[in-house]
Amino acid sequence: MEVYLDNAATTKPLKSVVEALVEAMEFNYGNPSSLHRKGLEVERKIKEVRKYLSKEIKGKPSEVIFTSGGTESNNIAILGALNHVKREAPKVITLPTEHKSVLNAIKELEGKGFEVCHGKMDDRGRVDLSHLQGILDKNTVLVSISYINNETGVIQPIEEIGKILKDRNCGAKFHVDGVQAFGKVNIDVKKCNIDMLTGSAHKIHGPKGIGFLYVKEGTLIKPLFFGGTQEYTLRPGTENTPGILGFGNGLKELLGNKREVYNKVLGIKKAFMQQLEQEISDISIVSKNIEEESPYILNVSFLGVKSEVLLHSLESVGIYVSSGSACTSKEQDHSHVLEAIGLSEESIDSALRFSFSRYTTEEEINYALGQLKSIVNELRMIMKR
Amino acid sequence: MEVYLDNAATTKPLKSVVEALVEAMEFNYGNPSSLHRKGLEVERKIKEVRKYLSKEIKGKPSEVIFTSGGTESNNIAILGALNHVKREAPKVITLPTEHKSVLNAIKELEGKGFEVCHGKMDDRGRVDLSHLQGILDKNTVLVSISYINNETGVIQPIEEIGKILKDRNCGAKFHVDGVQAFGKVNIDVKKCNIDMLTGSAHKIHGPKGIGFLYVKEGTLIKPLFFGGTQEYTLRPGTENTPGILGFGNGLKELLGNKREVYNKVLGIKKAFMQQLEQEISDISIVSKNIEEESPYILNVSFLGVKSEVLLHSLESVGIYVSSGSACTSKEQDHSHVLEAIGLSEESIDSALRFSFSRYTTEEEINYALGQLKSIVNELRMIMKR
Repeated sequence: MEVYLDNAATTKPLKSVVEALVEAMEFNYGNPSSLHRKGLEVERKIKEVRKYLSKEIKGKPSEVIFTSGGTESNNIAILGALNHVKREAPKVITLPTEHKSVLNAIKELEGKGFEVCHGKMDDRGRVDLSHLQGILDKNTVLVSISYINNETGVIQPIEEIGKILKDRNCGAKFHVDGVQAFGKVNIDVKKCNIDMLTGSAHKIHGPKGIGFLYVKEGTLIKPLFFGGTQEYTLRPGTENTPGILGFGNGLKELLGNKREVYNKVLGIKKAFMQQLEQEISDISIVSKNIEEESPYILNVSFLGVKSEVLLHSLESVGIYVSSGSACTSKEQDHSHVLEAIGLSEESIDSALRFSFSRYTTEEEINYALGQLKSIVNELRMIMKR
Repeated sequence: MEVYLDNAATTKPLKSVVEALVEAMEFNYGNPSSLHRKGLEVERKIKEVRKYLSKEIKGKPSEVIFTSGGTESNNIAILGALNHVKREAPKVITLPTEHKSVLNAIKELEGKGFEVCHGKMDDRGRVDLSHLQGILDKNTVLVSISYINNETGVIQPIEEIGKILKDRNCGAKFHVDGVQAFGKVNIDVKKCNIDMLTGSAHKIHGPKGIGFLYVKEGTLIKPLFFGGTQEYTLRPGTENTPGILGFGNGLKELLGNKREVYNKVLGIKKAFMQQLEQEISDISIVSKNIEEESPYILNVSFLGVKSEVLLHSLESVGIYVSSGSACTSKEQDHSHVLEAIGLSEESIDSALRFSFSRYTTEEEINYALGQLKSIVNELRMIMKR
């Protein structure tokens, strides 16, 4: 049996996504910038996806640009929006648990004289709103906080943060990395007072190499690179039309029953957690208030068992999980996220991330549970010898 | 009949490219950064493509990074390589006929105190080597010249330029936009002393949204955006693996018989030109020395006929061509390329670009010639009334 529980790293594309890509490559291969029919037809199709996508987040079509993915979108939002800032000692607020594409873009700003402030969090990594309120001042030009953390699944109180920003009215822009949230939870950019929102296709069964950035009307953005006038000149280069059309087809299939699916996956996660706790001793789950965490992500420490060893043992029986996030798994031993929320070294060293998809079945998690139980016991026995 | 002669804008992907994309999406959907088999397998496949591609240009695998396409590659080469330059009055040499992604990236540098020098060209847009030699000095940090111009097809003497740079030994980097050349002519980065070379997949029947940049070992590049450690940290973000594997499959099909195909397309272009000149009066062809131009591109002015009118008339009979390049066709009336090489306004206003592919047939160009003849005559008659 093969059980893929690494859906926060990437997902298997839908059949309808693959079909749309094939169709785009075989019949709509024109360059959208061409003046003839082959260009115009595909331009019209891109427009449709932009419209559909913007509606989903309650924005306007002209507020959505397509990019190559989440990392690029986060960087356009952070570097692109702040490159033109000229004021003295500008301040950026973020969380130490953000994705590396947010943290490293902000690090880049630090080298240019920006002050970087980390918001305080509780022991699950949820932002401390009153602390945030305290550090938000007239020098703050950007607050960048993700909707859902990619390692722990914690959901940030985005609406409340947006309200704080609006009430303070200090002119700070609000960027939300929504890569783990888009297509799974309802996102309302207006209600949440979001200025920029990042989304990615391949995290929700879409193609790799395509993502988007919502940019609220009137937000000044300087592109990261230059060329033609594609994507309102904010993101030049021949459009990845098969990617965009594939993404669009996927959205049509996914967004209709988002809420039902959310509850279904929540059921899967609850059952998995419950049985883990019942059947395997000495485990530690970051999750303490399941309602404030994504049902799609579960981080568990199997104390005394090195996560990499467990990961490869699970792999040998067809179960795919992650230690830390995929993006940083190779360059470091430690998850910066788990470290930042204050987990013990023992917990960090033995942490695995299980990430579910809308297609994860009860049968799959039962198989995973059975294997986990015997492998963890076995590994612990070996360690004791 | 449908005759697509806009292959310099984009090409129809090969069947084998589409198949590779489908396979990658269905079976190799893992994240290459994941530590488990699903990640490692696809990482290995990407490695193979990198190896194959680098061999084609006589570079090393570690010298090739995958990007989202030509525009991004050109910008990494220009902005990424020069961002760290600290010397006073640094100078960049380029041609006014370069692609907008080169010119606009360089314009960005101009705003940062770089001096921009345009090389002189002959009346076909071929660089004047002795003038280049004259303006190349110790302040020059970059020379950026494309291998083949995307509107006129003129081939630049890249090897000679590389030799001049090497002989002068002033430390200037040599960037070559090879988007219209890669996969069509032999490129030897070592022989030509190229420091950075841009390539794109969708111009040679590969997928959109994928390109590469060759970066010679030891060349300092600062990424345009930040995140994980993908692509030697020069280009972070989850890899567009279907794009890379599709590109790779296409290369395997295309590169074997590159030379034969080149000659075949040259034959097509020669026949097309000859018959155009025989059968349609008052035309002007930029091309004067066909050996120094790409067989894939032909720019013809049908004097007295507005190019957009002719473009749409041809479209109505299933023939797709371009006026100017696709990338800039919408924002301006005039081709900056044809203007820069000194074409008369009349020639520019009536210029069409025919761009062939390795699959263009004699039957197709005969159809196009027949239609052109009658449409041009008809339009000229209307104009005379």
